This record gives sequence, structure tokens and C-alpha cells, in this order.
Amino acid sequence: MNRSVKVTIWNEFRHEKTNEKVMQVYPQGMHTVIGQAMPENYTVTYAALDEEEHGLTEERLQETDVLIWWGHVAHDEVDDRIVQRVYERVLKGMGLIVLHSGHFSKIFKKLMGTSCDLKWREHEPNGERERLWVVRPGHPIVEGIGEYIQLENEEMYGEHFDIPQPDELVFTSWFQGGEVFRSGCCWNRGQGKVFYFRPGHETFPTYFNKDVQRVIANAVGWAAPVASAAPVYGNAKPLENI
Amino acid sequence: MNRSVKVTIWNEFRHEKTNEKVMQVYPQGMHTVIGQAMPENYTVTYAALDEEEHGLTEERLQETDVLIWWGHVAHDEVDDRIVQRVYERVLKGMGLIVLHSGHFSKIFKKLMGTSCDLKWREHEPNGERERLWVVRPGHPIVEGIGEYIQLENEEMYGEHFDIPQPDELVFTSWFQGGEVFRSGCCWNRGQGKVFYFRPGHETFPTYFNKDVQRVIANAVGWAAPVASAAPVYGNAKPLENI
Amino acid sequence: MNRSVKVTIWNEFRHEKTNEKVMQVYPQGMHTVIGQAMPENYTVTYAALDEEEHGLTEERLQETDVLIWWGHVAHDEVDDRIVQRVYERVLKGMGLIVLHSGHFSKIFKKLMGTSCDLKWREHEPNGERERLWVVRPGHPIVEGIGEYIQLENEEMYGEHFDIPQPDELVFTSWFQGGEVFRSGCCWNRGQGKVFYFRPGHETFPTYFNKDVQRVIANAVGWAAPVASAAPVYGNAKPLENI
Amino acid sequence: MNRSVKVTIWNEFRHEKTNEKVMQVYPQGMHTVIGQAMPENYTVTYAALDEEEHGLTEERLQETDVLIWWGHVAHDEVDDRIVQRVYERVLKGMGLIVLHSGHFSKIFKKLMGTSCDLKWREHEPNGERERLWVVRPGHPIVEGIGEYIQLENEEMYGEHFDIPQPDELVFTSWFQGGEVFRSGCCWNRGQGKVFYFRPGHETFPTYFNKDVQRVIANAVGWAAPVASAAPVYGNAKPLENI
Repeated sequence: MNRSVKVTIWNEFRHEKTNEKVMQVYPQGMHTVIGQAMPENYTVTYAALDEEEHGLTEERLQETDVLIWWGHVAHDEVDDRIVQRVYERVLKGMGLIVLHSGHFSKIFKKLMGTSCDLKWREHEPNGERERLWVVRPGHPIVEGIGEYIQLENEEMYGEHFDIPQPDELVFTSWFQGGEVFRSGCCWNRGQGKVFYFRPGHETFPTYFNKDVQRVIANAVGWAAPVASAAPVYGNAKPLENI
Repeated sequence: MNRSVKVTIWNEFRHEKTNEKVMQVYPQGMHTVIGQAMPENYTVTYAALDEEEHGLTEERLQETDVLIWWGHVAHDEVDDRIVQRVYERVLKGMGLIVLHSGHFSKIFKKLMGTSCDLKWREHEPNGERERLWVVRPGHPIVEGIGEYIQLENEEMYGEHFDIPQPDELVFTSWFQGGEVFRSGCCWNRGQGKVFYFRPGHETFPTYFNKDVQRVIANAVGWAAPVASAAPVYGNAKPLENI
Repeated sequence: MNRSVKVTIWNEFRHEKTNEKVMQVYPQGMHTVIGQAMPENYTVTYAALDEEEHGLTEERLQETDVLIWWGHVAHDEVDDRIVQRVYERVLKGMGLIVLHSGHFSKIFKKLMGTSCDLKWREHEPNGERERLWVVRPGHPIVEGIGEYIQLENEEMYGEHFDIPQPDELVFTSWFQGGEVFRSGCCWNRGQGKVFYFRPGHETFPTYFNKDVQRVIANAVGWAAPVASAAPVYGNAKPLENI
Repeated sequence: MNRSVKVTIWNEFRHEKTNEKVMQVYPQGMHTVIGQAMPENYTVTYAALDEEEHGLTEERLQETDVLIWWGHVAHDEVDDRIVQRVYERVLKGMGLIVLHSGHFSKIFKKLMGTSCDLKWREHEPNGERERLWVVRPGHPIVEGIGEYIQLENEEMYGEHFDIPQPDELVFTSWFQGGEVFRSGCCWNRGQGKVFYFRPGHETFPTYFNKDVQRVIANAVGWAAPVASAAPVYGNAKPLENI
């Protein structure tokens, strides 16, 4: 995490304005809690659905190394043109961290090529226990993390999770109610890297958890663009005599 | 290949009607040459762009175990609703074999989540040599195939090929002009299997090649649906007391 | 599973002779229970540690399409020359199914290149609940299997399981005591296929479970050799003029 | 590469003392040429076969973040106890970069679990052209590298390369004589990372090539250990009441 990275944290930012329970947990929005947890050498900016162009102008995306995405009730309100813009930036190298209910966001489904569907359960009133086991020790995303992360109150997400086989599977969750879930997954898309991280139901203080914060910060470092040559596509002259 | 499979071969079927060179090579269309090469225990039907619903009605797709796709100049004419229909069938288990210029079809790009772009060259007048090396001996798709398949006259496709990392890489091509290409690639999407196979430029008699035919037939067998339980998605009751 | 396959089931076959509890569950040995569950078109033979050459002569292995392996207390008694012989047959295409405590067998560790270590717990007196979730629906190994397999009494194996990333992850287990485990894993080695399947502690009647039997039978079909060309290694003349 | 890493470069260091052609290209040994190309923030030390314990004492390995390995004619002279020591360090997190003919080293074969065999050709007198295509743009190992690396004079290595499917395939080589080769491959083993990089025949000045040097330096950064929790193995108490 000793690398300077420009992070944009995108939050749908609706629950925090309409649901009293969420207001109490995240009065300034989930994005600010995540942002304040980023290391000092990261430059953090925020964007939200209700801003113009959802806060994701072409200029803003060009200035973004890694985009963090939290959405839930308003996936359909995200403009397809903005989704296309984010998609193209990912293929050109921008990292993307998709959190929790973002599994059903347009951008995640477009990058995965699958339905991204799953089982879920919001056990009243306090959710249930989740234990995220590290199945890939030594991966940069688990730097500083123990053998597992335990969260006492979370929504359940269960298999089958309809995603392409992850290029790297980092976490697998155990749930109190009897399910498992591939909860930390890496993929490559074009020159970009995508990380899905499961925890973060809006009514629980999950993003205050130090381990969860550390994983997100690590993932940003892992997903930051690498300055390799952009591939050239299209008609090509031979490199050998034929 | 001793398994009964229902195959639908979809061909854009435009070049064969408009380009004299292609007419000569494939007077009845590429699809029929491929279809006639399928083993006897496969049931083969055909579909084409200019049929109603492109020949891919809901009923037809329900009756299809594996769909083979060849398209090129008219990708944009494929109706988005039909693309969505094929996509949903793949996630439910239908196999999909995408050939050659099908890399730019709507359905392949939608399933991959990437641009599927590449380098290409049509060396006049006779193309160039391609040698498809088997990099995964023992895979069902190379049953009966030697260490490589050699094609004297083909269009070149070169890296970088903008696809997600294949779940299994079966062939890698060498081209006379100096390029390489991941030319036989497997992915899983939902309950379905996808195989991309590179050769098959319309002006060359590639689909008459016995090895190419064998690979396609093998791929159909590999991609045929498996009768496992369809996953249940959505709200789920706990399996344990919580 | 409609394919004829020659299966050899290798069992250490010591617990069944010395431990009264195991004697009661498997009076003829675990191998015979597994063997009797194989489909009719499979040809089943047995081999055990205490036979000459552990029952795995060169001739026997040449006649074997897929080898099933159960071992536990006597891994060290397996002769290194026999391990080498099995290893070479796998690289030449023989399938290998490694069951439960076979994770610590010489042959599995040699093929994996890792320690294959894990967490374990034998909860007295009746073990604990394991639920094996299918994370790859549509895979040939889960044909006929539901969304999960539930076993009421099993030994626990927990992550981290020190294996190379599986080429395909088919099952992930939930355990009552709070752990998860990658419990059905596929790898390719040379021309051969390897499947590790977790359940089967000797004191529980796991191999009488119809789902467990079905998975093993499916895995045998999946792992059966494919008649592709054996690669040629060593000094090679150029295929092009240089 | 802005991270401090302790690199040990191990060279068999025999060709440079006995073969006049190699002496002229690498009078101080290949290892020193590689070492001098490492970035300033890397700490480089050297070790060779003919040193006591091959220069790889327990202390030395404990002080090593990433080990680079070049061997060829004397693989068999490497003491099995030293191989075991290196192996255990890799599983505990030390990175390993295996170069060229190191594909047949004891340590690489032990970590792969396969024969690591391949086709090869030393075309007299000047080898042949190799073009290493980047098939994974955006990977940290290709930072600063163009679409391909071209080497005019190299030994040929051709498929089939008998390795487990790489976790990440970064380079694929084209050879003038008609072959292809997976020439830059990543695997995870335990907590450690392994990178195989093909070029570097002893009679050619390959390790003076700036791109080759850059790839090796990048690979060292990629393979450096990550401070995640060491997994605990063995008997485990339940985390939940059962």
C-alpha cells in the first residue's frame, strides 16, 4: 500500500438518506467511512448516483486509478452510457472494486457476462455470523489479515453465485445459517483488474471493521493500473516475410 | 462422441450468397459442410440470420443442446432480443461453439465481458500458414488430434486477443507472419460451456479439413449440457438454527 | 457415465482390519462398497497396500483407466517406486481420484507440488455436519446431484488447504464447527486428470451415501483417458525454413 | 519496483567456466549480469552450485525474499536436502523465478508436480528468432514492456510444455522454426509465488537485453512475499458450538 493511487468511491447513497437505521450507522454515507480508512498515500474522491453524470464524467474517470462501487436499490437508474464509459475505462486499465450488493450492478454484470445471481437472507433483526476464510494466503489482498475475518452481524449471500470462475479466489465465507459463498474474487478484464468483496450490508457497521477496511485498501493497491503497452488491435502488417 | 446431442448450426450465411470466391468454396454454405461432418449420433439442424427470429425461436433453442455460431459482416443485424435469448439459454446449460469471426458477435462479447478485439491480416491472395499447437493434451476436445493442426491458407488473428483468461486453453496458433494466438479456448458461464475456435475464414476451405471437423465435433460433445440441479436463487431460509 | 471405463480401487485397507468401529461399518473394506456402487459399464478391480507391489504392478496400471485412492495411517509404507509408477501413468493419461485422507498420500503431494496440509477435527463421538455446496453447476462431476450434499456425521477438514489453485473448483464444504473447505477439486497433470473429493472418514458410513457414490462414479467418467496424441519431447527439427 | 526486496540469484555457474563461447558472453557469469540489472532498491546477493550447501544455507534463504534460479548441465548435482529447503521456503512465502533451462531443475519439477518436459532446438550457429507476445497486458510483470519482446538469437523451446495450467499466462512465444511456447507463466504454491521465464540460453547475450532484464526485475517485485498470516494446520477446536 506504499504506492500513490487515485481512488474514486462511488456510492448509490440512497439508503443513508431514507432509512433511519442506515442513517444512524452511516450518517455521512458509507463512502466516507470507506474513504477515511484509505491509507494516506491514496488520493480519495467521492461520487454518487444523484450527481450529474452520476459524478463519473469522462474527466473524472481518466483521473481515477481505481473505482470502488456500492449500489443496491437503484441499479436501474444508472445510465447505460455511464456504464459503458466505466466499462471502457476498466478495459483500458482502471481497477474496479465491487462491494456487496454491487453484484447486481449493471457494470459488474456487464464485465462478468453472467447473471451474478445468488441466494440471500436478511435475518431479523441482527443478521447472522459470517466468517470469511482466507483461501489464498500470500495474496496481496490479504496483507495484514489473519486466517479469517469474523463479522457478527451480516446479511447472508449463498452459493450458487453465478459468476465466471474467478481468476483468483481469495476468500470463502461460512454463514451461520448453513451456506458458503465465494466472497473475495479476482478477475482480469482487458488491461483492468476487478475485485468483488462480499461484506457490507447497509444496516450493519461493516465498513467500520478494521479488517474489512484493510482488505479494501489492499485491493485498491492490487487493482491499480500497470503501465504496460496498450495493445494495438485491427489490421496488422506481417513481422516476417511471407 | 458416443453421446446423442442435438446441435443447431447458425450461420450468418451472407458471404456465400454475395462473394464469388466463397460461393465456390461453400456453395451450400459453411453450415452444411460443418453439419455433414458431425457424427451420426448427433442430430443436426441449421439456422440463419435471414430466417424469422434468425431461426432461433424459443422452441428451437429449448431443443438445442449445443449451438454453433459463425458470423462476420452482419453482427449488428442480429436482434438484441435474440442475443438475450441465446445468452439465457447458455446460462441454463446450452453449449455454445463460437467460430472464427464470431469473436465479434454480440453473443460472444456479452458472455465474455470484454471487447474480444484482436489483430488480423488477410494476406493476398492465399492467406498464410497457421499451425494450431495442442497445449492441453488429454482434453476431450483434442481426442483423435495430433500434436498440431496445420492449415496452409488462413487469415491471421494475432494477440493481444481481448478475452478473459480462458478456464482451459487447448490450442495456441503459430502464424507465418510472426504472430501467436490463443486459438482454442474454454469458458464456463452459468451452467453452460463456451468454446471459441479460431479457424474458418470464409474464402478458404478450412471446414473441409478433417482435423478442424473433428475438433468441432469433439467440442460439441464437451459442451453438451449436464443434468445437474438448476441453482435456486433469491431469498433463502436458513438450513441451520440461528 | 455411459462409457466403458476400467477402474482400479486402491485401499490402504488397514483400519478395516484393526479398528472395531470401522470393521462394523465396512466389514469388506471401503473399496468394495465404492466398487459395488460403480455403474455396470465400469470394470472394477481392487488393490491394497499389503498385496505384492501394493497390487499396482506395471501391467495392472497399464490396464487401468482411472485409479481411486484411499489411504491414511500407512502413507509412509507406500513404496516410492510404486508412487513413481503411478505418477508416470497419470502424466500419460490415467485418471486419479484421491479420497479424503488421501490428501496426505505420497502420490497426491507429488502431483500437487505442495504440502497438502489442512485443519482437521474428529468431533466425538459422531463427527459433525458437512454440507458440500455445488459451486460449479453443469460440471460433469455433479450430474444428478442437487444443490448440495449433506452428511450428518463427518470429520472436519478446514482451510487453509495447501493445494495449488484448482483448475476447476466443484464443491465447497460448510462445517458445523465454523470452517469451510474446497472439497471437490480438479487439476490436470500431463495428459491425466486428478480429482480430490473430501468426504469419507473411515468410522462413518459415508461411502454408502448415494450422492457420494454418484460423485465418485461421475468423477471416474470425467477422468477417463482421452485418445489424443502423446506429446513428443526432446530435440526437434524445424517445421519451417530457418 | 519501488519496493525494497532481497534477491538471491542462484547460478549453476559451470558453462561460464568451461565453454569458451559462454565465457566470452558472460565472463563474470550470467548471475552478475542479471544482478547488475536489478533496480537500486533491490538488495542482490549471489549463490552458486559449487559453494558450500550450494550457497543456500538456511540463514541465506531466511534472508531471501525472492530466489532466481538458472541451472542446466548439473541439475542432478543439486543436493536433495537443499531442494527440500528451498521448497519449504517457497511454501512459506519466498518468491521463485525459474529461468530457461531451469525448467528441468529439481526444485521446479517438485513444485510443478509434472515432468516439465518440452521440445527444444539449438539451431547452429546462431539460434533462431523468438518473439515473446504479451498475452496479459496490465499484469505487473509486463510493466514497461511493449506488445512483444523480440530476440534474434535464441534456442527454441516448443509445446507441449508439460506444466500444470499456469494460474496466469503472461507471455507466449513465436519461434522462427514453426513452434509456440508458453514462455512466461505464474503459479502459486503455498504462500509463495513462482514465475517461469523462458529466454536465456547460455551462448547468447539474452540477459543483456533491456526488456528481458525488466521482466525479471518486475517478476521479483511481483513474487516478493506478502505479510499475511501463516496458516495454522493440524487439529483444530470448533469455532461454533456443536
